[in-house]
Amino acid sequence: MAEIGLVGLGTMGAALASNIADKGFDIAVYNRTTSVTEEFVAGAGDLAPKLTGTGTLEEFVAAIDRPRAIILMVPAGEAVDAMIAQLRPLLDDDDLLIDAGNANFHDTRRRAAEAKAQGVPFLGIGVSGGEEGARHGPSIMGGGAKSGWDRVAHILTAIAARFGDTPCATWMGEDGAGHFVKTVHNGIEYADMQMIAEVYGIMRDGLGMDAGAIAGVFRRWNAGPLASYLIEISGKVAATTDAKSGKPLLDVILDSAGQKGTGRWTAIEALHLAAPATAIEAAVAARNLSSRLEERKTGEAIFGAAPQKVDGDIVDDLEQALLAGKIACYAQGFGLLAAASGQFGWDLPLPGIARVWRAGCIIRSAMLDDMATALTETPDENLMFAPFFAQRLKDSHGALRKVVSTAALTGNPAPALGAALAYFDTMRTARGTANMIQGQRDFFGLHGFQRLDATGAHHGPWAG
Amino acid sequence: MAEIGLVGLGTMGAALASNIADKGFDIAVYNRTTSVTEEFVAGAGDLAPKLTGTGTLEEFVAAIDRPRAIILMVPAGEAVDAMIAQLRPLLDDDDLLIDAGNANFHDTRRRAAEAKAQGVPFLGIGVSGGEEGARHGPSIMGGGAKSGWDRVAHILTAIAARFGDTPCATWMGEDGAGHFVKTVHNGIEYADMQMIAEVYGIMRDGLGMDAGAIAGVFRRWNAGPLASYLIEISGKVAATTDAKSGKPLLDVILDSAGQKGTGRWTAIEALHLAAPATAIEAAVAARNLSSRLEERKTGEAIFGAAPQKVDGDIVDDLEQALLAGKIACYAQGFGLLAAASGQFGWDLPLPGIARVWRAGCIIRSAMLDDMATALTETPDENLMFAPFFAQRLKDSHGALRKVVSTAALTGNPAPALGAALAYFDTMRTARGTANMIQGQRDFFGLHGFQRLDATGAHHGPWAG
Repeated sequence: MAEIGLVGLGTMGAALASNIADKGFDIAVYNRTTSVTEEFVAGAGDLAPKLTGTGTLEEFVAAIDRPRAIILMVPAGEAVDAMIAQLRPLLDDDDLLIDAGNANFHDTRRRAAEAKAQGVPFLGIGVSGGEEGARHGPSIMGGGAKSGWDRVAHILTAIAARFGDTPCATWMGEDGAGHFVKTVHNGIEYADMQMIAEVYGIMRDGLGMDAGAIAGVFRRWNAGPLASYLIEISGKVAATTDAKSGKPLLDVILDSAGQKGTGRWTAIEALHLAAPATAIEAAVAARNLSSRLEERKTGEAIFGAAPQKVDGDIVDDLEQALLAGKIACYAQGFGLLAAASGQFGWDLPLPGIARVWRAGCIIRSAMLDDMATALTETPDENLMFAPFFAQRLKDSHGALRKVVSTAALTGNPAPALGAALAYFDTMRTARGTANMIQGQRDFFGLHGFQRLDATGAHHGPWAG
Repeated sequence: MAEIGLVGLGTMGAALASNIADKGFDIAVYNRTTSVTEEFVAGAGDLAPKLTGTGTLEEFVAAIDRPRAIILMVPAGEAVDAMIAQLRPLLDDDDLLIDAGNANFHDTRRRAAEAKAQGVPFLGIGVSGGEEGARHGPSIMGGGAKSGWDRVAHILTAIAARFGDTPCATWMGEDGAGHFVKTVHNGIEYADMQMIAEVYGIMRDGLGMDAGAIAGVFRRWNAGPLASYLIEISGKVAATTDAKSGKPLLDVILDSAGQKGTGRWTAIEALHLAAPATAIEAAVAARNLSSRLEERKTGEAIFGAAPQKVDGDIVDDLEQALLAGKIACYAQGFGLLAAASGQFGWDLPLPGIARVWRAGCIIRSAMLDDMATALTETPDENLMFAPFFAQRLKDSHGALRKVVSTAALTGNPAPALGAALAYFDTMRTARGTANMIQGQRDFFGLHGFQRLDATGAHHGPWAG
C-alpha cells in the first residue's frame, strides 16, 4: 500500500511524485489520461518500485493506506473543485486532501471552509521552485488545519529544499495562509526580476555593454551581497549564445513578458489591505506594458526611443542600487504579509517565511537568511528599520538615488527602482506632503483634517 | 404632483434636490429620519414651493407623477440594496430607480442585471463636484438602459454644470458604465492631487518656500496651461491663514490623507484589466503611507528626514513637469476606460467623457477640452500620441526628467511623477528590457519566449 497519493502528472506533479518516491515513500499516482500515468511509471527507472500507477480513481484510492493523504496537482481553478467533488465520495471522512497547485488563496479559503463544514481535512500548500525544485527540493508553504499538516509533515519535510540542515517546509497558518505566502513570494519575484531588467537596460542601452560583458557583471554580483538564484540565472541567460544566429540569445528574445497572474494577485491584495507594495505594482505594470509592442513602436516613431547614453561608469552604483531597492521591496512584501496576517487571522510566522524562502524557491538568496534574523530580532518593525538592513540602506541609498536620477535623465525606465526609492524616502520622513491633499479634500468635499496641534477633526475657513 | 422624487437628504442629496427645484422641477423628497426632511423643506426658502416633503415611503411614492423617476442618494453599499428592496413593492413596473450615490460599478452591474431580470428600469449615475457641484451644477455620468436615461435626461441636463453652453451630463453606456467613469474620474483625481502634493513638497522642503510664496506660484500656474480647479484650490489652500495660530493653515494640517476607496477601486480595476494606471497606483499608495505617521517617525529617527535642499530655481520646471505628468496620467486613465469598455461591452464615448469632465467635477480643467478634441481626432491612439499632446510632451518631458531626477537626488518623494515619466519612456521605446524577464522565466520555468526573428514559442538551451 502507498503512504500517499498524487493526482495530476503534469510537469510539476510528475516532478513532485518522483521527488517523493526518491525520498523512499511509496506513492500511488493517477492522471485523467491513463497513458500519461503509464508512461510516467514506465520511465521512472530506479523509482518504479516505489510508484503505483492507477487507471481509475477507485483503483487509486484503494492503493493508498488509511487514513489517506492525497496531493492534488491539477490546474488551479475549476479543475481543483471538480477533482475534489469527484474524489470526496470515494474517501473516508478522515482522508486528507492537499491542493499543492497554484491556487488563488481566496479559493483555498473557500475550499477550507467547505471542508470544515463537511468535517473533512484539507490543506492548501504553495510549492515554489519550478520543475527543478519540485523534483529535487522545493520550498513548501503550508496552509490549513495544523493537525492535517502534522500528518504529512514528515513527507513534505523530506522532499523540501534544505538551507544547510534546515528543510524549507513550514506550516504558515489556517486555510489560505500557505497559498497567500506563495502568492507574495511570486509578487516579490516579479519585482526582483523587474529591478534586474532595469539595471540590465541601463547597462545595455545606457552604458552600451554587450551581453557578454553584462553576464560578467551578474557573475561578479553573485559573489557579493546580491548573491541569489535570480542574479545567478541572469548571468547565465546573458552568457548564452543563440545557436541559430550566433548572437547573444538575449538579443534575439522578444521584449514582451508573459505572466500567470500571481504578481497581479499580490498587487490587488496589497491595495485591498492598504499595505503598499509599490515595487511589485510597478513590476506588474511593466510586464503589461511590455506586451504592447505595437503601441510602443508608435510611440518611438513619434518621440524617438527614450534610452540615451549614460556618462561615466555606474556599474558599481547599479549593484548598490539593486541592493537598496531589493531591501525596500522585501520590506513592502513582509509588510503586506503582516497586514494579511491580521486581516485573515493567520498569525503568519514572518521569520519562518524568510527562512523557508532561503532555498528551493525562485527568490532564494543569501539575504533572506539575514532577513529571518532581522524579523526575529525586531518582529514588529518595518524591515528597513532593522539595524542590519538600516545600515545596508545607509550605505546604499546614495547609489539608488544616483541610479534613479540617471535613469530619469537618460530615459532608461526604472519604475520599480524608482518606486522603491520613493517608498524609502516616504517612510523616513515624519512630515510629508499629504497636508496639501487634506487641505484640498476639505476644500472641495468638507472631509475634514486633523491638526498638528490639536485632536479631532477640523475644517478650513474656506468660505468664498 | 412631483415630476421626480429623491430619497436621502444627506449633504449631497439635499444639494441635488435643491438644484432640481432651483431649475423649476417639482420634486418630492424623503429621508428615513423625518425631522431631516422637515428641516430641509422649512429651510428651503424660495425653493419651498417646488418641494414636497414626505414622511413615509408610501406618501413619497404617491406624490410623484407616473411613470415615476426616483433618485436614490443613500450611502453606497447595503443601504442602496435595502432601499431598492423597500421601494420596489410600492412601485409600478415602469417606475425608474436611479442610484446617484458613489456605488462600486460592480454593484451597479449586479443591480442592473437584477432589475433587468425583474423587467424594471434602473440607472446608476455618477455625480461629481462635491456639495457645491451638486447644488449648482455637477458633472453627471449616466449608466443603465438608454431608454431610462432618455426619460430623465431633460432634468439631469438642466441641473448639470455647463462648459460654455454644453451641459456636462452624458449617458456613458449600459449598467455600471456611469459609475465606472466616475470611479476613474476619482482615480485621476487622486493622481492629480498627489502630483500637486509632490511639487508642493519640492517647493516647501527643497526650495524652502513659505506657504504664501507657494500660493503665488499656484495662482500663476492657474493662468497657464495647468489652469484647473485643483490648481486653483491648491493656491487658495496655501494662501489661507489659520485663525488659531496665525500661521499658514497648511503648516498646521496633519500630513495624513484620508480616502473613501474610489482611488483604490480604480487601481484594482486597472490591475484586473491589465491597463496600467501607475500614477494612480502611486497616489493610492502615497495616501496609505501618509497615514503611517508613527512608522515614518521611526524611520526619520533612524535615517534622518529624507528631503534636502534643491540647488537653483526649478519652479518653472515644476510647472512643465506637472503638465507632462498630467498628460501621462490622463493617457493611463483613458487607456483604462478603453480597456473596460471592451471588457464590459460598454462602447464608452471617450471624447464624451473628456467633455463631461470639463466642468462641474473636481478634475475639471482647460486641458480636458483639448483632450476631447484629441480623443475625437485620434480615437484609437494613446492620448500621449495625439499630435497636440505629443507636442506638449516634447516641450515638457525634459522638465519632468529634471524634476524626477532632482527629487530622487534630494530625497523629496515624487512617486506619481516618477511613475508618469517611466510610463512615457516605456511607451516610446520599441525595444524594452523584458527580454531579460522572458529569458529568466524560460530558464526557471520553461515558460518559453518569442524571438525577434521568428514566430512561435522558443526555449533556450539552458541545460547545465
